[in-house]
Amino acid sequence: MPQVDQDGRLRHLLTLDGLSPATLTALLDRAQAMLDGIDDRSTLEGVAVCTLFFEPSTRTRLSFQRAAQRLGADVLGFDASTSSTTKGETALDTLRNIEAMGVRGFVVRHAHDGAVAELAASAAPGTALLNAGDGRSAHPTQGLLDMLTLRQAKGMDFRELKVLIVGDVRHSRVARSDLHALRALGAGEIRVCGPAALLPEDDTLAGCIVTQDFEAALEHVDAVMMLRLQRERMTEGLVDSLEDYHRDYGLTPQRLRRAAPDAVVLHPGPMNRGVEIDDAVADGPQSLILRQVRNGVAVRMAVLEALMGRGGS
Amino acid sequence: MPQVDQDGRLRHLLTLDGLSPATLTALLDRAQAMLDGIDDRSTLEGVAVCTLFFEPSTRTRLSFQRAAQRLGADVLGFDASTSSTTKGETALDTLRNIEAMGVRGFVVRHAHDGAVAELAASAAPGTALLNAGDGRSAHPTQGLLDMLTLRQAKGMDFRELKVLIVGDVRHSRVARSDLHALRALGAGEIRVCGPAALLPEDDTLAGCIVTQDFEAALEHVDAVMMLRLQRERMTEGLVDSLEDYHRDYGLTPQRLRRAAPDAVVLHPGPMNRGVEIDDAVADGPQSLILRQVRNGVAVRMAVLEALMGRGGS
Amino acid sequence: MPQVDQDGRLRHLLTLDGLSPATLTALLDRAQAMLDGIDDRSTLEGVAVCTLFFEPSTRTRLSFQRAAQRLGADVLGFDASTSSTTKGETALDTLRNIEAMGVRGFVVRHAHDGAVAELAASAAPGTALLNAGDGRSAHPTQGLLDMLTLRQAKGMDFRELKVLIVGDVRHSRVARSDLHALRALGAGEIRVCGPAALLPEDDTLAGCIVTQDFEAALEHVDAVMMLRLQRERMTEGLVDSLEDYHRDYGLTPQRLRRAAPDAVVLHPGPMNRGVEIDDAVADGPQSLILRQVRNGVAVRMAVLEALMGRGGS
Repeated sequence: MPQVDQDGRLRHLLTLDGLSPATLTALLDRAQAMLDGIDDRSTLEGVAVCTLFFEPSTRTRLSFQRAAQRLGADVLGFDASTSSTTKGETALDTLRNIEAMGVRGFVVRHAHDGAVAELAASAAPGTALLNAGDGRSAHPTQGLLDMLTLRQAKGMDFRELKVLIVGDVRHSRVARSDLHALRALGAGEIRVCGPAALLPEDDTLAGCIVTQDFEAALEHVDAVMMLRLQRERMTEGLVDSLEDYHRDYGLTPQRLRRAAPDAVVLHPGPMNRGVEIDDAVADGPQSLILRQVRNGVAVRMAVLEALMGRGGS
Repeated sequence: MPQVDQDGRLRHLLTLDGLSPATLTALLDRAQAMLDGIDDRSTLEGVAVCTLFFEPSTRTRLSFQRAAQRLGADVLGFDASTSSTTKGETALDTLRNIEAMGVRGFVVRHAHDGAVAELAASAAPGTALLNAGDGRSAHPTQGLLDMLTLRQAKGMDFRELKVLIVGDVRHSRVARSDLHALRALGAGEIRVCGPAALLPEDDTLAGCIVTQDFEAALEHVDAVMMLRLQRERMTEGLVDSLEDYHRDYGLTPQRLRRAAPDAVVLHPGPMNRGVEIDDAVADGPQSLILRQVRNGVAVRMAVLEALMGRGGS
Repeated sequence: MPQVDQDGRLRHLLTLDGLSPATLTALLDRAQAMLDGIDDRSTLEGVAVCTLFFEPSTRTRLSFQRAAQRLGADVLGFDASTSSTTKGETALDTLRNIEAMGVRGFVVRHAHDGAVAELAASAAPGTALLNAGDGRSAHPTQGLLDMLTLRQAKGMDFRELKVLIVGDVRHSRVARSDLHALRALGAGEIRVCGPAALLPEDDTLAGCIVTQDFEAALEHVDAVMMLRLQRERMTEGLVDSLEDYHRDYGLTPQRLRRAAPDAVVLHPGPMNRGVEIDDAVADGPQSLILRQVRNGVAVRMAVLEALMGRGGS
């Protein structure tokens, strides 16, 4: 596995797939310590981190930027999605160039599956890549922050946990990273629900209870992980209308009552209010959505420290 | 008043309207101390400030960024006007998300009147919002920096001061904030001059001497505050042509001679040279235009310190 | 010469043309010391540097930003090429405004020849301008980093050195700055090769051996400095096709064998792989292309220190 070196240490964070429960738990523990203000964190003073986004995402970029700032790192931004300066340069040449400027860490987002792993395979030995989302494949820090959020709400033991993921799993790197992490941490039951056209046909859902009946799926679950509905699913003909989607898969307060009484609601943002989630749920007492964002900075600090800190590779 | 808490301390800076002369004077004194290099300023080290611009403005953003940097804060930039990543998210969700990342201060510009106050009403208790311009309503730090500039040139006592504001007051948040501040600080005479189509019809000009005769208006004034003519006023049919506007309301050296001999000239920038102001005036000895820019950083430091420093809310 | 003051000290870096060998060598020595980790560098802590790009160039901007960060400076970015906020303001007004915010150093790129020198002529006494590329005229830090790269590979004495510059010299500020530096440092032989339509007609090539025969030009040279082929040369009718250009002027491993056995290859990037340079050369053992990028940060640190450090103007 290219992201872990021979001594078992993380060199890159490309995917949660294949990471050991011990590795995941160590990252989550460290993130929790960051939140608890335990101030023994490594410093990245004088170290440069570049956010290299081939696909735009201001919020994820800001979260990584804040995490790097809090560790004392210098942050450089390269918005390759709007940069006219790449001038036909390959992504790898761009990476190697910024690497040659003395940058040791790259937070990379790319529209294509596997693009970040490909770059990592060609990076210099001392360089760490953090996948900030590639195609439909993986968004590992989102998976980690979701697990941290679940752990804070439901305790460390996932074996009794019933988790429901709802929506466009087919196109979702968030869902894939959540599934990798939930399995590794031994979640008791993973349910997946969404319209057939938005469910994956490969083995992504192996071991999951899959249904298109949202209300049945909600029964007694401890956590509901909503996914964002991308508007392009309409133009692609995969979803008829926002109204239809809301009728069938929108999380309303009424529907949420089918879940366990203390069930929690997660959403990776940005939300389509009134489409996949109602205001009363998004802003309600069971919502952990802003907690997820808060946890995101801590998780990204933990990952940056693990990959680039004194104890890192 | 939502920007001042029960103990009379500023929580946000949304408008100068309603602020007490004591509050204004304290901010101006503090800004002056910053300029004088009195180095007892609070540090914002480790504190994050986000420039959240729903309408673009590089210069105002840079001025706030420089002010935050000089106080040691970490600055994050969110250009919501070009960000494709907001993806239909509401401004409030954007604010709450960045807030959840641990950001305590927001410098917000928005095209709609009252939009910044609306966000402030929903912000978390520890969050401070600084209005960097909303619609036609207010641009409070511009008002403050204009007052600081007048004070430096004309002394602390505004009671004998004759000030003339020229141009598109109707659409100008700068003019409104200047009017709020000039009234609060007791300016002796406030004159307003511009074409009828560019003067407001509401009570914005209450207490002002209003005229369309620029030359008469200039007689013996101590300060001329020029406003920028937005080119869209032509397409809207409110102004015939740039040439006509310059003929009637352009500040030329000849016209300026009607003012008091030591009259000063202000302009919020960016200038339309040859339209509302001639080069010889803009770059002449009576111009304080670059002094305004310099004062802007100091004023913004004072406001950031008041809202976010150790003594702040 | 406007970039050097009466005491012979650099005030700006606008061009390498006319700089003394001693000045060039001092900058190169300092850059080399930065690379060698000699940690006596001046600090620019609390000093603000603005990258003011009227023409986009992410890589050059990042290199300067990293250099400024490493010296402890605060960096502000003004992308005038996309900023809608300049609103018709002149470049000089933009500069003066940011200057008034307390910014002392400007890294300026502009599409027009001489535009940076023009701005420098009107800048305040304490302000330093660094030309990051103007029109076809000059890209002095690129020239310096190329010389540093040559010196590292071939030693300090350029008198025996045979250097070949290949490609679109006519439109290249990189080539002009390289020529200025090579002459000043006493390069033994400077050859220039490219299609007639891409060679300059003025005295740019005075003293050079000029040919259109690439293979003859390569014989026994110690260094090959490739230039980027801008795609607009095709639409302008100056080059027939990328294939034709590669056939005549593409640097292949076969062609490179004509050069001296230990010849080195430089390219300012970004590369058109398969057009002016083949992968096997770009990534081969004779390529110093990534070394150039690494040297770029060091050279820019040396220049920033010279212009803005304690010993600077």
